[in-house]
Amino acid sequence: MSEPKIAVLRQKIHGLSAVDYAAALRDRLPDAEVTIARTPAEEQQLLESAPIVTGFSMSTEEVEAAANMDLFACVYAGVGHLDLDAFEANGTAVTNASGVHGPNISEYVLGSILSFVRGFKRAWRQEDRNEWRSYPARELQGSTVTVVGLGAIGQAVVDRLDPFGVDTIGVRYTPEKGGPTDEVLGFDEIHDALARTDYLVLACPLTEETEGLIDSEALLTLPTDAFMVNIARGGVVDTDDLVSAMQANRIAGAALDVTDPEPLPNDHPLWDLDTVSITPHNAGHTPDYYERLADILATNVDRYRHGETDFENRVI
Amino acid sequence: MSEPKIAVLRQKIHGLSAVDYAAALRDRLPDAEVTIARTPAEEQQLLESAPIVTGFSMSTEEVEAAANMDLFACVYAGVGHLDLDAFEANGTAVTNASGVHGPNISEYVLGSILSFVRGFKRAWRQEDRNEWRSYPARELQGSTVTVVGLGAIGQAVVDRLDPFGVDTIGVRYTPEKGGPTDEVLGFDEIHDALARTDYLVLACPLTEETEGLIDSEALLTLPTDAFMVNIARGGVVDTDDLVSAMQANRIAGAALDVTDPEPLPNDHPLWDLDTVSITPHNAGHTPDYYERLADILATNVDRYRHGETDFENRVI
Repeated sequence: MSEPKIAVLRQKIHGLSAVDYAAALRDRLPDAEVTIARTPAEEQQLLESAPIVTGFSMSTEEVEAAANMDLFACVYAGVGHLDLDAFEANGTAVTNASGVHGPNISEYVLGSILSFVRGFKRAWRQEDRNEWRSYPARELQGSTVTVVGLGAIGQAVVDRLDPFGVDTIGVRYTPEKGGPTDEVLGFDEIHDALARTDYLVLACPLTEETEGLIDSEALLTLPTDAFMVNIARGGVVDTDDLVSAMQANRIAGAALDVTDPEPLPNDHPLWDLDTVSITPHNAGHTPDYYERLADILATNVDRYRHGETDFENRVI
Repeated sequence: MSEPKIAVLRQKIHGLSAVDYAAALRDRLPDAEVTIARTPAEEQQLLESAPIVTGFSMSTEEVEAAANMDLFACVYAGVGHLDLDAFEANGTAVTNASGVHGPNISEYVLGSILSFVRGFKRAWRQEDRNEWRSYPARELQGSTVTVVGLGAIGQAVVDRLDPFGVDTIGVRYTPEKGGPTDEVLGFDEIHDALARTDYLVLACPLTEETEGLIDSEALLTLPTDAFMVNIARGGVVDTDDLVSAMQANRIAGAALDVTDPEPLPNDHPLWDLDTVSITPHNAGHTPDYYERLADILATNVDRYRHGETDFENRVI
């Protein structure tokens, strides 16, 4: 079989250029024809012939026009923004970027927890005033950390917590599968977990079951000294309930990489809560992003060449 | 042997009260007479009779007046502030708090590194402006971390780095002892380590050999994207050389829990360098400080009762 043509869609993700992604693909697939369009018109043309396409998104019309597309390698871990029915009708397999974000997002989560534990935000405010003044801190060791969602990211978080001497609880759809945490509970038992939680990490997909999962009841169930990190999706937390809980000091703090709505409007009350830390949905950024994406796609191109369809990270 | 009398010196360390330390000792030694003075005069009296004394410091005169003192349990890991000759002349064994700080200081170190990796300081500055704007981050995985000093704290740092997928280099006085790092080098080879270092952690005691260890040559040898954490003593770094290196952007950042001088004067140039994060020598603070100190002293009181002198953490 001849080397397949790979079309790299134009995209700018976390400030990284698709040109680097194309280069990483060429490094791994020196014989393949890796093409990246410079303009929308060139891209349309490319899509009509390429059997393999990789990028962030394709509209329904673009999918329907891509008559030869056998594989779409989405560069995001979540594919909720794609019209999967259109891909299916077109006979196109879709893969996602699951696993790419394990290292960087787990580093974000541990960094958020430890910054809170050591009171770095306070230190940096004192720094702005050139003020040397000791203050007390907390300790992570001996705490209970609950991770909601035990996919690639949740597992990477649990792995990195291992030497910190914490008890871990995992909450997942299928608790019968077990998991890397000391305990694994189902979503129907989440309040039992929250009542014992010092640090809550949200790493689940946004689904009907998880939408608004962290609402006023959940926030009331968490201990007052609890800290929450959300690297899932903004909608997993009820934003109004979170603002109320924070205003009433019902939990100790939160680090949010995702919010609802997003981007967070500049007059939103979340900005002004000193116990809330906000990053602009960039926990997914890593300088190795395209390298890891290219590793997955190179594996799948190899399978495609051999007529196989059991692609790594295949979604449909 | 009857239960020994234990005198707890008045002290306020990291905002914690010695009353809590006395309570933690009574929990562990219900039959011992644990006494804490309320005034300097009471303390003087107490010192004349107590066989076991615990606290931060004693002057030479206080040591000489403490005729019955067999054991002084210092609540600091470093005992450089004590007149050890006076204790020795008085026939008093001295123990330190080594090991007490492993969890909290290693949490501080990992938190500092990961905050830098994920650009949290930038996020928090954007937060002050209610600004949602993505920015790139670094990744810890795949980096090289050099830990100078492989005592209890250095080892705790290396333990917690284990699941992050980094290469580690240890630098110690006695490299022939080996250590938990991938490589162990002596101080004579430190520049070889620095040239390959992405993250430098200073966790060594301040000695003639380590004073000014990180000078302009060391800072020039580190890669430009290197980040340094100092939780040792301020004097391990040449402050003027560090200011110059930061002003010239020769390394990417530093987190300092200790400085030289200390407290850092409020007009010191270190405060105004955005790539330098400063905490007020409180990485040693942990809510479990007195619990862990009391564990050590309870063990040693037990040995004392049995006429043993091989105390845990014995310095002299």
